[in-house]
Amino acid sequence: MRLDQIQNPAFLKDLSISELRDLSHDIRKTIIETVSKKGGHLSSNLGIVDVTIALHRIFNAPKDKLIFDVGHQSYTHKILTGRYEGFVNSLREFSGISGYQKRNESEYDCYEAGHSSTSISAACGFAVAQRLKGETDQIVAIIGDASITSGMALEALNNLGMMKEKVIVILNDNNMAISKPVGAISRLFSRLRISSPYTSTKSVFRKMLLATGVGRWLITYLRKLKNAIRRFIVGTTLFEKLNLEYIGPIDGHNYREMLRIFNVAKERPNSVVVHVITKKGQGYPWAENDADGKWHGVNGFNVETGIMDGHCSKDEVSWSEATATIVESQMGKDPLLTVITPAMIEGSKLSSIFNRFPDRSYDVGIAEQHAVTFASGISAEGAHPYVCIYSTFLQRSYDQLLHDFGRMKLQAVFVLDRAGWVGKDGATHQGIYDVGMLKTIPGSIIAMPRDYHDAQLIYEIAFQYQSLFFIRFPRENVSISNNPIQHRESITIGSWEYHPSSELSTETIIVTGPNYWNVLNYITTHNFKYNLVFARYYQPIDDSLIKQLFLTEKRLYIYDIYADEKGIAESIFALAKKENYKGAINAFTLPSDYIEQGDISSLYRFLHLDLDTVIGEIKSLSSGI
Amino acid sequence: MRLDQIQNPAFLKDLSISELRDLSHDIRKTIIETVSKKGGHLSSNLGIVDVTIALHRIFNAPKDKLIFDVGHQSYTHKILTGRYEGFVNSLREFSGISGYQKRNESEYDCYEAGHSSTSISAACGFAVAQRLKGETDQIVAIIGDASITSGMALEALNNLGMMKEKVIVILNDNNMAISKPVGAISRLFSRLRISSPYTSTKSVFRKMLLATGVGRWLITYLRKLKNAIRRFIVGTTLFEKLNLEYIGPIDGHNYREMLRIFNVAKERPNSVVVHVITKKGQGYPWAENDADGKWHGVNGFNVETGIMDGHCSKDEVSWSEATATIVESQMGKDPLLTVITPAMIEGSKLSSIFNRFPDRSYDVGIAEQHAVTFASGISAEGAHPYVCIYSTFLQRSYDQLLHDFGRMKLQAVFVLDRAGWVGKDGATHQGIYDVGMLKTIPGSIIAMPRDYHDAQLIYEIAFQYQSLFFIRFPRENVSISNNPIQHRESITIGSWEYHPSSELSTETIIVTGPNYWNVLNYITTHNFKYNLVFARYYQPIDDSLIKQLFLTEKRLYIYDIYADEKGIAESIFALAKKENYKGAINAFTLPSDYIEQGDISSLYRFLHLDLDTVIGEIKSLSSGI
Repeated sequence: MRLDQIQNPAFLKDLSISELRDLSHDIRKTIIETVSKKGGHLSSNLGIVDVTIALHRIFNAPKDKLIFDVGHQSYTHKILTGRYEGFVNSLREFSGISGYQKRNESEYDCYEAGHSSTSISAACGFAVAQRLKGETDQIVAIIGDASITSGMALEALNNLGMMKEKVIVILNDNNMAISKPVGAISRLFSRLRISSPYTSTKSVFRKMLLATGVGRWLITYLRKLKNAIRRFIVGTTLFEKLNLEYIGPIDGHNYREMLRIFNVAKERPNSVVVHVITKKGQGYPWAENDADGKWHGVNGFNVETGIMDGHCSKDEVSWSEATATIVESQMGKDPLLTVITPAMIEGSKLSSIFNRFPDRSYDVGIAEQHAVTFASGISAEGAHPYVCIYSTFLQRSYDQLLHDFGRMKLQAVFVLDRAGWVGKDGATHQGIYDVGMLKTIPGSIIAMPRDYHDAQLIYEIAFQYQSLFFIRFPRENVSISNNPIQHRESITIGSWEYHPSSELSTETIIVTGPNYWNVLNYITTHNFKYNLVFARYYQPIDDSLIKQLFLTEKRLYIYDIYADEKGIAESIFALAKKENYKGAINAFTLPSDYIEQGDISSLYRFLHLDLDTVIGEIKSLSSGI
Repeated sequence: MRLDQIQNPAFLKDLSISELRDLSHDIRKTIIETVSKKGGHLSSNLGIVDVTIALHRIFNAPKDKLIFDVGHQSYTHKILTGRYEGFVNSLREFSGISGYQKRNESEYDCYEAGHSSTSISAACGFAVAQRLKGETDQIVAIIGDASITSGMALEALNNLGMMKEKVIVILNDNNMAISKPVGAISRLFSRLRISSPYTSTKSVFRKMLLATGVGRWLITYLRKLKNAIRRFIVGTTLFEKLNLEYIGPIDGHNYREMLRIFNVAKERPNSVVVHVITKKGQGYPWAENDADGKWHGVNGFNVETGIMDGHCSKDEVSWSEATATIVESQMGKDPLLTVITPAMIEGSKLSSIFNRFPDRSYDVGIAEQHAVTFASGISAEGAHPYVCIYSTFLQRSYDQLLHDFGRMKLQAVFVLDRAGWVGKDGATHQGIYDVGMLKTIPGSIIAMPRDYHDAQLIYEIAFQYQSLFFIRFPRENVSISNNPIQHRESITIGSWEYHPSSELSTETIIVTGPNYWNVLNYITTHNFKYNLVFARYYQPIDDSLIKQLFLTEKRLYIYDIYADEKGIAESIFALAKKENYKGAINAFTLPSDYIEQGDISSLYRFLHLDLDTVIGEIKSLSSGI
């Protein structure tokens, strides 16, 4: 069947194995071509094509529930559930098809994620609700080998092992999540993987044996023997320890094996973990041979050459890369500085640090809670932790920040990568809530540099600060040409910068982050006479500067495109009321809401937060400038 | 040695086994007497007396680091480190000795907790910092059998298994944390516990054998054989799966066995888990025979009779109990309503619900992340989750609330037990940050009833609401005599109540929670003429009522003793500025800070938030009432 004609996965029931293989081939081709143009998650989607097809062949979605952990590997699922057109034309675009499962996109998307390791907990919930409603559909959680080692997935397994309800867990083991999986559990999986050469069961000899009753008995007996030997060698699996039936490992690219085993799992009355081995990037050589995770999430690339779309400018690098350089240099100076990241070596460009300082660099895997308290222990014993984490994932560590850091007034620098909008990854990944969350932590400092020069100064202060210091930066590029630090400024904690207009003005625009330069350029080009404040710190806000503005300014504008209104705007409003400021304040910030995917400039226009709109609005509010 | 003469634990090195036993007896007596007067954690402290003494005998604190998970079982540790006087005279009192480890209390308290399951992560951090500093002191984490099944402890074990640094984990297994431990891992511990009858090794026969070389060899050989048999029966332990050496189980009340094994652990070059079996409440019969966790944390009690100090009034019950009654009644009406709690059956008075509706009641153990996403799955599949959790522990689930609930606009009622100050448990448990945290979640409702009648109405609305609904209540008692609902009011979401003074006034006090009645009584008694607003919802605030007040009132006072200034006060200030309110606003709220332990009324006086002070302040601000 042509992919654009697929309405739902029912047609899969009638396909032969070889037709299933042809379908795999077509879908892989579509995924590679689409991602090469639109960007997106490549390796994980290529790896799970056959597993997804086999699942849809055996289970009856949408009655049966397929819950993809994280959800960034659901491209095949989207194509099989009638979303081919949307997928190839609008993947991850504004108003288009999400890169994740979305309940409002299809009845086949019963649950949503984006952050990892939620699927087993959710599946437990689905199973309970099904029982209460008197229904008995199958609940299937599909989770990767790195995601399953996260604390909340382990909590869920621990509970599932004692629940009466049935859940099928498909452990999609490609030994390669975003970064290389870490920890003792991953080592266990490796041993299991090696212990059972699943490919050996596909022999001609086996086919011959299957033709006779004795032959079938012999095969069954041999399989049991093989399993017994495996157990003797590697011991019972972790899952069996957790009271969960374990089947596997099986070959996630072998339809015959998958269909048989998925059927077994379906027939079982109890919960079962099916361990499926897949090859990351299967079908696209560059992705198959990727050791570092470069092909995990990509922008566009050339399908033939495997060359990824490059940067726009030579002296521009990502903020991740720029700040990693600062930290690497600091590590050379401070032998007690230790870097910790939860599975973000590649994303946050930390490879160079990890290679140069292997004894002081820790990738703890998808374990944000442990990452933060691990850092807290390092600090309590007098060394210097630096935690590199995405803004959106730090949400997993709120209690650890409040309870294990702020309360004991321990020192650490946290860098919040991808603060502000992340664009095409959408609502689950937006880094816009951290300011509201972090400002509730007593004594914490939250800074956001506007450029590389600023970042260097802020890091210098941050490494000397004796309590929690958060540095945010956006998912953008930054010029590093103004390096090294040329003119030293005083940027003490909480200090903002005031830049008066060339002509006397009583109206001031307060701007955060790199957007400062955009605003400055815009008003200079248009010859608009506004004073400008660069609000370097979200917390504390610069009390003395603002109080000065309260005395002189008729109108203040807050223009913050990197956090929601609960952040800096609410702090300034509250101070203005307390100080009885008589002038007006207008805030242009992100709304306190969930914002879906899209390219970042479309999103700003959609929310009337682009430069043209905001400055236009300011102009019309202005008292005759 | 008399307990009040202990300066530090060095004297333990010279004691005989029988002297150690005498010391245990004295310390148990002191703990029982002190807790009977001051309240505190009893069972856990009685259970771990001997283990703590043995640890201080073998390890050399403060150089060696003893990190008690949670820390509420550190009473013996406090007595052994020179804090006897403070312990018996001021345990958990204002400016007194904390019920937990405190870094500023003693150099022997190298780390602090309060929330569970942080100790192994912290210990990993200590070990790394030690290596970087070129030190090689022993790092010991002491963690209970329930705490170790929490996700973040499992994350830490998973990492520790692959780290080069050495950490000793003492698994204090009493099969009884706050509630009965749950889940598959606990079942594993039970099997281990049964498999090795450690008591049998204390025989006279053994002593005789030890006298000869062959005998010692035989004992070693028999022990190895016993371990081999145990492994054959129960399999290798979970810890060995995680690449960690496992020793045990051993008897946590047998000094000879503990001293030997702790020494073995100390000599090992690698990380090791020592599984110690202790008896909860050891030495106090009522606590020993406690099946429900009633003796976990207690107020005062009579040592002779075991009768706990009672309630002050007959028709008063705890808020926990009152709200549990409402929910139980609702469960009778709604067959899809499901109750979830992370290990708080006893604390939140849910036993009756769990007994009556076993098929719809889930204690997931100390697994706050899983608890919330489990609830999210239940909601996504159309049933109705009710999550009962302490305010302070919900901090562990911030991401799950934002990402797995708010974003998908799924329905659930969350009740935040012990919101506001918790008093004697101190800084780690204060339920004062939740409003600031939860108001960042788009679309969430946060309510706090002032009395039982109000609670009934709020629950009714909450169960009908289609998204996240949080209900907070304090650690106080409430009268249930005005039950059932007498006069029905309209309390639509976000609605506050305005009660004008009997005489015309242009000043209004906005009050939250049960404190409303205190304020009303106080100003009525004193014949003060203020209008009063009951702010039933922290979010959304009652826009239309406040805007009305902005038009008529010269001065507004905000009096919120249940949350910090980032909560309702900042919301009102911001709205006032946006609406250009010309009058004054004064806020009396908790500071955005960490507040230590003490009885609640002392804390209020300390922070000038008691009725006398606040109303006095209001009087002096008032324009001539």
